[in-house]
This record gives sequence, C-alpha cells and structure tokens, in this order.
Amino acid sequence: MNVTIINIGDELLIGQVVNTNASTMSKLLTEAGMKVRKTMVVGDVYDDIRAAVDEAMRESDAVLVTGGLGPTKDDITKKLLCEYFNSELVENEMALQNVKRIFESRGYELTPVNRVQALVPRCCEVLNNDLGTAPCMWFGGEAVLVSLPGVPFEMEWLMRNRVIPKLQETFSTDIIINKNILVQGIGESFLSDLIEPWELSLPENVKLAYLPVAGLTKLRLTARLPHNFPLSSFHFPLKGLYELAGKYIVGEDCETLDELVHKTLIEKGLTLATAESCTGGNIARLLTAQAGASAYFKGGVVAYSNEVKESALGVKHSTLETHGAVSEETVREMAEGVRERLGADLAIATTGIAGPDGGSEEKPVGTVWIAVADKTHTEAKLLQFGANRRQQNIDRSTNQAYAMLIRLICQKD
Amino acid sequence: MNVTIINIGDELLIGQVVNTNASTMSKLLTEAGMKVRKTMVVGDVYDDIRAAVDEAMRESDAVLVTGGLGPTKDDITKKLLCEYFNSELVENEMALQNVKRIFESRGYELTPVNRVQALVPRCCEVLNNDLGTAPCMWFGGEAVLVSLPGVPFEMEWLMRNRVIPKLQETFSTDIIINKNILVQGIGESFLSDLIEPWELSLPENVKLAYLPVAGLTKLRLTARLPHNFPLSSFHFPLKGLYELAGKYIVGEDCETLDELVHKTLIEKGLTLATAESCTGGNIARLLTAQAGASAYFKGGVVAYSNEVKESALGVKHSTLETHGAVSEETVREMAEGVRERLGADLAIATTGIAGPDGGSEEKPVGTVWIAVADKTHTEAKLLQFGANRRQQNIDRSTNQAYAMLIRLICQKD
Repeated sequence: MNVTIINIGDELLIGQVVNTNASTMSKLLTEAGMKVRKTMVVGDVYDDIRAAVDEAMRESDAVLVTGGLGPTKDDITKKLLCEYFNSELVENEMALQNVKRIFESRGYELTPVNRVQALVPRCCEVLNNDLGTAPCMWFGGEAVLVSLPGVPFEMEWLMRNRVIPKLQETFSTDIIINKNILVQGIGESFLSDLIEPWELSLPENVKLAYLPVAGLTKLRLTARLPHNFPLSSFHFPLKGLYELAGKYIVGEDCETLDELVHKTLIEKGLTLATAESCTGGNIARLLTAQAGASAYFKGGVVAYSNEVKESALGVKHSTLETHGAVSEETVREMAEGVRERLGADLAIATTGIAGPDGGSEEKPVGTVWIAVADKTHTEAKLLQFGANRRQQNIDRSTNQAYAMLIRLICQKD
Repeated sequence: MNVTIINIGDELLIGQVVNTNASTMSKLLTEAGMKVRKTMVVGDVYDDIRAAVDEAMRESDAVLVTGGLGPTKDDITKKLLCEYFNSELVENEMALQNVKRIFESRGYELTPVNRVQALVPRCCEVLNNDLGTAPCMWFGGEAVLVSLPGVPFEMEWLMRNRVIPKLQETFSTDIIINKNILVQGIGESFLSDLIEPWELSLPENVKLAYLPVAGLTKLRLTARLPHNFPLSSFHFPLKGLYELAGKYIVGEDCETLDELVHKTLIEKGLTLATAESCTGGNIARLLTAQAGASAYFKGGVVAYSNEVKESALGVKHSTLETHGAVSEETVREMAEGVRERLGADLAIATTGIAGPDGGSEEKPVGTVWIAVADKTHTEAKLLQFGANRRQQNIDRSTNQAYAMLIRLICQKD
C-alpha cells in the first residue's frame, strides 16, 4: 500500500525548523512495511493545502497530514477537512474528555479557546491523543486520510500507538519485523563483499539494508510475514552472518552505539569515566543524554589543553614533551589516569586533530588516538581520517571509542 | 517570486536520512527574499519525478531539484530533463574540466564512469560546482528549473554562490539584509509585549520574526531594499529595541549562543573551563565543535557523581552533605574549583536534575543550578524547568549558562 505525507506549516517553508516529522513518519511506515510514495510540505494556505490533499488522495491508499490543529492559530486544516468530506464541525465527547483530562493534570482551567480543540468533522473517527489536546482524526473511505498534530512527540506517539496499528488492520498488511545489527571496523563495500554468501542465502521474505553513519554500519534486516504468522516461531537466520563477519559485529537491537554502551554498562553493572580531547565532551554527552546514565557514568574530563591533561588526568609532563599530545603514550596515560582518578571500572580516552587546522606533516589533520582501559588492560588504536571535516572526525572518533569499549567488555565474558 | 523545491531520493522516503536539504534551501531562499511555496520529496522513480516537475513548473517561477545526479546510480534526473526540455545529452567542456580538476586534486585517474558526469542536456547552462563532480544545471525559460546535486555541502555551496545570485539577477529581486539579535531571560510573549512600541515603529520594509529555541529567542530583522540601494547607507533601527529590552539582549549577528561565546572569548583573549553535571558535556562539546576552540577552551570536567565533584573539582564533602549536589553552594564551588584547577579566566558550572527520574518534593525534576565565575565574582542562578523532558532541560540549561557567561564578560567592559 502507498502512503503520501503532507506536513503543513509556514515555519517549515522558511527553513526555521527542519522537517523531522517527515523522516520520523517515513521511517515508522517503512518499518511497518508500508511504502511512502511522496512527501510534501505546504504553508498555512488553504488553496495550497487543498491542492496537496486532492492530489495525494487521488494517488495514494492513505494520506497522512500533520499540522494546522493548534487552538490559537488559524485552524485551516479542520475547516478544509469539513469541506473536503462534506461534513460539519461537532464537539466530540472523547476529544473533549481528553482536553479536560490534560488541563486538569496540568492544574489549568479549561477556557473556551481550548474547548474548540474538541471540535472535529462529524464524519471522522477520533483516535485518542494521550499526550496532547489536539485530536487525531481518521477519515475512512476508498483512500484513508488521517490528520495528526504537528508537535513531534505527539505525532510520533500517535503514529506508533494509533495510526500504524489501524492502517495495518485496515489494509491487512503483512507483519514486518526489523532487526538491527551494528557493525564496525570494516567499510561498507568490503562488508558487502564479505557477507555476500550469507546475503544470497536469505529467504525471499527477508531483506537487508545497509545504513552507514560515522564509521558504523547498521545492518537492518526486515522480515515480511503473513498477517496471521505465529511470531514466536520466527527467527532471523544470523548464523552465517556471524560466521563471516562476527569479529566486526559489536551488537544487536540498538539504533546507535551510545545506546548499546548505555545498555551494556547498566546490564553488567560496570562504571565508566571518559577523558576527551578531540571529541570535546561528545562521548560523555551522548551517554548522559540517556535517562539512567548516572547508574554507570562517574564523570569525564575534557582535557583540551596540555596543562589539563597533566593536572586533571596525571599525564606525565615528559610523555607530552617526548611524544606529543596526539600519541599512543599520551592516550594510554589519559585513559588510565581518568579511570583511576574517577574510580571507574572502565575508561575511554581520545586525543587527536579534529581540524580544519592544527595538522603537521607527521600528524596531519584527522590523526586520532583512542584508548579504552579496564583494571588490567589498556587498548590503544590509531585512526587516520582523511577528510578535513571537523564534525565528521568527532562523530567517527566517538563511534570508534564506543566500539572499542564494547569489545573490551565482551572479551572479559 | 515563488519557488518550489523537489528533493529526489529513496533514502528520504524510508526515513533513513532527515531531509535537511529542504530546510537549508528554504532558509537561504527566504533570507534572500524569495518565497518557498511548497517542497516535495519523491523517490528515484521516473514517473513520480516527472509528475512533480510538471506540477511545480506550472505553479512556480523557479523550481529547484536536488538529487539523482551521481555517477553510479541510475541517472534518472538527466534523462528526464532531456525529455522535459526536448534536448539531448552532450559532453560539457566546463563540466569535464571540473571533473578532471577534482580527480587530479585527489590523485585519482579519471574513469569512463566519471566522465559521464560531464554529460548534460544541450539546452542547459552549467553552473560550476567547485566542490564536487556533479554539475549544477540551469534551465531558463518562462519558469526556471535548476538541478543541483543532493550532497548537502555541495548543494549549500551552490545555492549560496551560484543559484541564489543568478535567481536574484534573473528575477531582479530586491536586496534582502538580515540581522539576528539574541535575546535571553524573557519568554517570547512577554518580549513581544515589551517591544511592541518599537516593532510598530519599524519602517514598512523591515520585518521582524521571532525564532525561539531552548530558552533563547532569536529576533530576526529582515530589510527589503530596492535592487540598486546603496547598502552602506542602510542601518537597522535598533535604538528603540535596546531602550526597551536591552537587558535581555545578549548579542547580535550570531545564529546560536555557543557561536557568540566562541567569538567573544576569542575576541577578548579570555580562557574558559567548564564543570558540568546535568548537562553532561554538552556545554563543552558545542564549543569544541567549532574550529579554533583550543584558543580559549582549557578543558572541562563532567562531574556526574559526587565523588568526582569532590576529587576533580574540590567541592567540599560537607557542602555536598549539607546542601546536596543540586544546590547553590555546590554549583558555586564547582565553578570556582574548575576555574582554579584548570587555570582559566572564566568558568561555567551546572548541576541539576535533567529527568525523567531523580526528582524529589523539594527538588523536582527540572531543578537546575548554574554558575559562572571569573577571578573575582561568581554568579549563581536557580532554574526550574517544569517539563519532564531530559534533552530539552539539557539544551535550556546550556543556553542559560552561555547567556550568564556573556553577561559576566560584558559587565567587565
């Protein structure tokens, strides 16, 4: 089945806001086995929205519309939907109870302006929006139209919990199961050659996608199963993949390596400290952006200057003098120093030249040393990123460090 | 004049990649005084691209298309443009020289596959792509069509240096000048009331936009001037704004507060150290993501645990015992401790409960203390974010800290 997405909002057309709704919706629909044919962004202009809806309804099985449902802004979307479906606005009891519930929970009085949020076209079915006051409206028919609020976290909750299940039911779509496998330390094209025999052996209902990002390749397996398939009897055929590329696989069932590190450390009850130079705090902040990081994250040092490498991490002055700040000796002392001083089981350290300036002939921009340490070992690795791009070098160093940490932890099992 | 943007790419329709091209292009066009009417994303499917181009050309003065120009992937876009404009593919000398130049600079041999990149429809004008091998093609006529590569940094360079200037020339558009003013410490609606008299006094050719993000409001002034206006004689009328809201204005001519801090510290030759608890390294990594940060950034401590607050920052055990980790006393000692230990002129410290867990009745989730210090003063401030959203609390705390630092620096002038 084909889906068209229409995101409404002037803020999207002036570039004030990046349209993450389109990509979130596309990702969720794709993962659920539906095909997004087209996405469109139009402003808060009646005729433009109408033309987009007309076109989309002609060409798609389902049209998902976000935006234009707020209580104060000109509520063009609902009026337009009334006209399109030849219906009229009525107060919906479920939507009204939802608005009341949310206002009560926040300790606010319900005002007449807010009560307007419970008005919907008579012909629609309201899908309850547990997280907000704007209703989600389902219009059945030859092609389905669903109107959702544009607030990203409300939209995403509604997509996952209301809209996608109902689309799957309505169109009796196949069951789609996804599995992520995180692969690191091998380029995409080499990986592709290496695992080709396994890929060719995959059953026809299992598809493989390569999603490379910052030195990591996420392999996404997608299985399409008949509507009534007993899920417990399905397993992805991973044996051949592990036989061919097991040493490059760092984990499964996570979207990112920071998520994998977060889960692994919590699961194993290990603590971590970080000593970052060229990554500038990025390794720490991705971990601490996740709720529950305080269970394992002791702290970190962003050791940008040599003085700080000495005073806060205990890197020896002679090491910096002899080998320089970007060297194996320094990164090892950084990792060992921060682990000991912060009293952690494990440590990560980075030092390098992120660019665009600061390189030399011997150590060009993109030269990065990374170390991971536990109580008994320290592993260090030299990376040479050719590209003269600061953020990319930071992101790749971050992923490399996480992968080395996971490998260090898992060797110990 | 109206512009429609068409971004081509299957990767955009499966949600693998967020379509930042649409927002970057929209922002640049809007800043140049052009109106984006609609943006569309279609897959690498001939009929879908053709339908989108047909529709866009009917309804717009200019249509900008990105994607589908790579050397290996099925090069649908060029074929389609040949058919649309009833033209044929020919090797373009300028495009070929550009491909050769780029291959030489990278030390690669030019292969026949790469030579294909220099083929373009005969009727187009090639706009040279200094950063890549895919050509940018301009098709004049009643409505203009421009085809650009989809690689974000090539696209952005071409938009700024080739496409927008040529659109401005072709359509004799007005000159547009923008100015950003960063305002912090006052909510958008209060700010709007406060500066209304100034806003009402603005000349008709100057527009004001409010761009709020994470506790900061960016005011963007846009002036529209006739094509031949002498730019040196134009000044934005800011006196009234400063009279009404001067104490909330932290800076001008920057997009973000981290950029403002970066520029200000370099300009003043001051150094900085950071001590972060609830922001987890975010304050450090935004600064160090900018080239040149080593000129002022000494380093930072991510002091997530109490032990680290004591051992790495010198916060007194008795302070933590008596007042707790999230307290004015602790945040002051963190700022003073990190400044002294890392030998910096200035320091930032944060400690708080980012959520979603960890709150108490006395200190609910969203309670954050921030301090900034120089050699003689320490300023501390309590923030109470109501929302139970971790990333938002981190982002707002970060901006608050930057604003406090700027205020501390500028008092000294």
